[in-house]
Amino acid sequence: MPINVTVWNEGRHEKNDTEIGKVYPDGLHGAIKKLLETDGDFLITTTTLDDPCSGLPDELLEKTNVLIWWGHMSHEDVPMELALKVQNRVLRGMGFIALHSAHMSRPFRLLMGTSCTLKWRDGCRERLWVTDPSHPIAKGLPETFELKTEEMYGEFFDIPKPESVVFTGWFNTGNVFRSGCCWTRGAGRVFYFQPGHETNPTFKLPEVGLILKNAVHWAYRVNILPSIDCEQVTSPLEG
Amino acid sequence: MPINVTVWNEGRHEKNDTEIGKVYPDGLHGAIKKLLETDGDFLITTTTLDDPCSGLPDELLEKTNVLIWWGHMSHEDVPMELALKVQNRVLRGMGFIALHSAHMSRPFRLLMGTSCTLKWRDGCRERLWVTDPSHPIAKGLPETFELKTEEMYGEFFDIPKPESVVFTGWFNTGNVFRSGCCWTRGAGRVFYFQPGHETNPTFKLPEVGLILKNAVHWAYRVNILPSIDCEQVTSPLEG
Amino acid sequence: MPINVTVWNEGRHEKNDTEIGKVYPDGLHGAIKKLLETDGDFLITTTTLDDPCSGLPDELLEKTNVLIWWGHMSHEDVPMELALKVQNRVLRGMGFIALHSAHMSRPFRLLMGTSCTLKWRDGCRERLWVTDPSHPIAKGLPETFELKTEEMYGEFFDIPKPESVVFTGWFNTGNVFRSGCCWTRGAGRVFYFQPGHETNPTFKLPEVGLILKNAVHWAYRVNILPSIDCEQVTSPLEG
Amino acid sequence: MPINVTVWNEGRHEKNDTEIGKVYPDGLHGAIKKLLETDGDFLITTTTLDDPCSGLPDELLEKTNVLIWWGHMSHEDVPMELALKVQNRVLRGMGFIALHSAHMSRPFRLLMGTSCTLKWRDGCRERLWVTDPSHPIAKGLPETFELKTEEMYGEFFDIPKPESVVFTGWFNTGNVFRSGCCWTRGAGRVFYFQPGHETNPTFKLPEVGLILKNAVHWAYRVNILPSIDCEQVTSPLEG
Repeated sequence: MPINVTVWNEGRHEKNDTEIGKVYPDGLHGAIKKLLETDGDFLITTTTLDDPCSGLPDELLEKTNVLIWWGHMSHEDVPMELALKVQNRVLRGMGFIALHSAHMSRPFRLLMGTSCTLKWRDGCRERLWVTDPSHPIAKGLPETFELKTEEMYGEFFDIPKPESVVFTGWFNTGNVFRSGCCWTRGAGRVFYFQPGHETNPTFKLPEVGLILKNAVHWAYRVNILPSIDCEQVTSPLEG
Repeated sequence: MPINVTVWNEGRHEKNDTEIGKVYPDGLHGAIKKLLETDGDFLITTTTLDDPCSGLPDELLEKTNVLIWWGHMSHEDVPMELALKVQNRVLRGMGFIALHSAHMSRPFRLLMGTSCTLKWRDGCRERLWVTDPSHPIAKGLPETFELKTEEMYGEFFDIPKPESVVFTGWFNTGNVFRSGCCWTRGAGRVFYFQPGHETNPTFKLPEVGLILKNAVHWAYRVNILPSIDCEQVTSPLEG
Repeated sequence: MPINVTVWNEGRHEKNDTEIGKVYPDGLHGAIKKLLETDGDFLITTTTLDDPCSGLPDELLEKTNVLIWWGHMSHEDVPMELALKVQNRVLRGMGFIALHSAHMSRPFRLLMGTSCTLKWRDGCRERLWVTDPSHPIAKGLPETFELKTEEMYGEFFDIPKPESVVFTGWFNTGNVFRSGCCWTRGAGRVFYFQPGHETNPTFKLPEVGLILKNAVHWAYRVNILPSIDCEQVTSPLEG
Repeated sequence: MPINVTVWNEGRHEKNDTEIGKVYPDGLHGAIKKLLETDGDFLITTTTLDDPCSGLPDELLEKTNVLIWWGHMSHEDVPMELALKVQNRVLRGMGFIALHSAHMSRPFRLLMGTSCTLKWRDGCRERLWVTDPSHPIAKGLPETFELKTEEMYGEFFDIPKPESVVFTGWFNTGNVFRSGCCWTRGAGRVFYFQPGHETNPTFKLPEVGLILKNAVHWAYRVNILPSIDCEQVTSPLEG
């Protein structure tokens, strides 16, 4: 059975900034799709904020197994009602992969319960280290690899303690970052991945492609919660 | 320096249900205050939903070091704006102790990011077990003690993985529950404690008094976050 | 590629206690093998303490992907040298599933670093609850199921905090237990499962079969550590 | 009641390497004692490997509340019997603080259950970041501080997932490290702190002094386990 992967991209930088067009002529969503489509298990849909229903009509959200989210300048234009629907869908078993500046997106912050704030600086050099080598998302990766130009994201990153820190980032600015983090929320799984600034060719790197493909497989769950409502028990007592 | 403890109680059951008056003539907040006031470190304020500003004017919230919250039938009458202020205050270092049915309160759910739902049944018998004996909240407690009548809360409890499960509950109904759970959120600490149904004399038990006093000390933090806003770094590069 | 599963059984109760022969005529290892062999991915080998090399010659250990361990009365007859080899093999990526009284086995205790002690009582009734429903080991299971007769194992269970408590046990004795626990050690994964007393027909239950099959798949890793030796770095400096 | 702190130092580098005498004329144990003795709560004893009973006679070990351990070149000269006693004492509630190269010491490795290996390189520059700002060990510290010369310790560090990573290290070599890590073992608490190479003046820094004092307070527990033996339950059944 194929895995329904939906790539949601804000898609507004692409309209305003000619720089991005040079790096990602098909938009960030197009580049991410291209990274994923070498995996025959995935049925990939791309969508953007300016598409109908802010890009996520109910039908699409319900059939999505794993949702990938890239957003930056327009977090507040995602209706709170939609953000709550995404959160609810995760609790019912959908995987959620938040990329780069999506740390401040509404669905991610609702799922975390913290401010998700951090330090940042453009145009730095990063080295990623695998700090949970037995994790499925690290499968097949070298122990470290370099991103020649990336936006520095630095600690303190205000997130709940991750269940795994798969990657830790080193920056030439003297900063460190928990760059790849995992959580469980309800029946769903959440992965945050720090690299992916809109003007850097990060989504062309084979290592990043492997990470995203691994992350989709890891986040894809067939388990479901018995319920996400409170349930009164009326059966006869044990004992 | 004293610890400013604020006990927020919904306080509506007390107005409608004469049963409760027999158990807690001074309200749940009065009973909780009485449990805490044997600790000379605490400066205790009680407040209820029907007090001005839903019981939590800004000035009171800001000076509170640890907020204890009991609510049940009127979760939706707590303004979302206030719930968001409580969440924000936790991220900036306030302790938060959610009691019993406060698992569905707005501040707790905002801090967790999950549905916080569970199974329930009135009028059961519970046995609490210490499952993290080195934890400060378990200090001085026996390895187990009984609550002759309590409301059963049963798994699956939809919460993020706790950093510690200090207490696990056994019920004569055949259910189990993570009855005392700890999390860090921002610079703040959160403790959820399951016992405390409004018609059961739970808040008269010395073991519960000890747990709450321990929890206040544990949740009280003087550390603060450098910031809960994103921060651009512009200092010269390291290297 | 098949998964090499080795079922190591102490195998001494079977020689001394005619009770067990009635429940498990092919030994505990035979019963466990039978539970697993409906999964076509597994190549299963059974072995016992009284086989050559205490049942685990180097060649067998090295080719094993997931080792299942049942022991009880003769933990101290497993040579410490072999226990250390098993630990080392786990760190290099082998999965390790410790069943029931294997909580006191040498390899498990070496991997945990704690005493692994607990309370116990024969001939009780148990109910298992799924407390991490999105975990791969819980896939396909009902939210709860009963074991009509099992040995009670009760808290406090002296183990390092599990990365997941997939199952929590309720006992008719008033006890609770973290009955299914997961840890990562080096490149390897460890699962402890509490049910499985030698005179109870636990290893005939379809739910237990599903749990063990899920656990083998979960514990099977192809990731390996770059090294389990310290490594001096002599490459040119970054900067 | 004072906290009995024992500083155990291998003390052999000091005898062979005149470099160290210049930095630490009273030995590493002397320098660590000096950092701690500004805290009036501590009763500090120093001891070394070449003292009687390898520096830890039973009486001293039993009365120690928090044991600080520095070792490097002679890990294998600590008798395994003593290492096991230290492990057992931690399980019964003693705090254990392992410094720098003590990551390969016998007591630490017994408590972890992993290889505890890492990458290393002499004479580097390090920057420590607070990555768990609400943790008691981070109390009073700035968000980051520099160690002008330290030995680089780099990932992958083969340890069980820490309950908290209080500090993360950045190195000018392009490496990162979980430099301050916490675990619970039995009734005891364990802290590992990476800085502290024998020829660097790390144990003269006020920030390091504050960290060690905080760590002693955090690791000091009065809780004890009900037992670290298995216990048969024979009381009447609940139900």
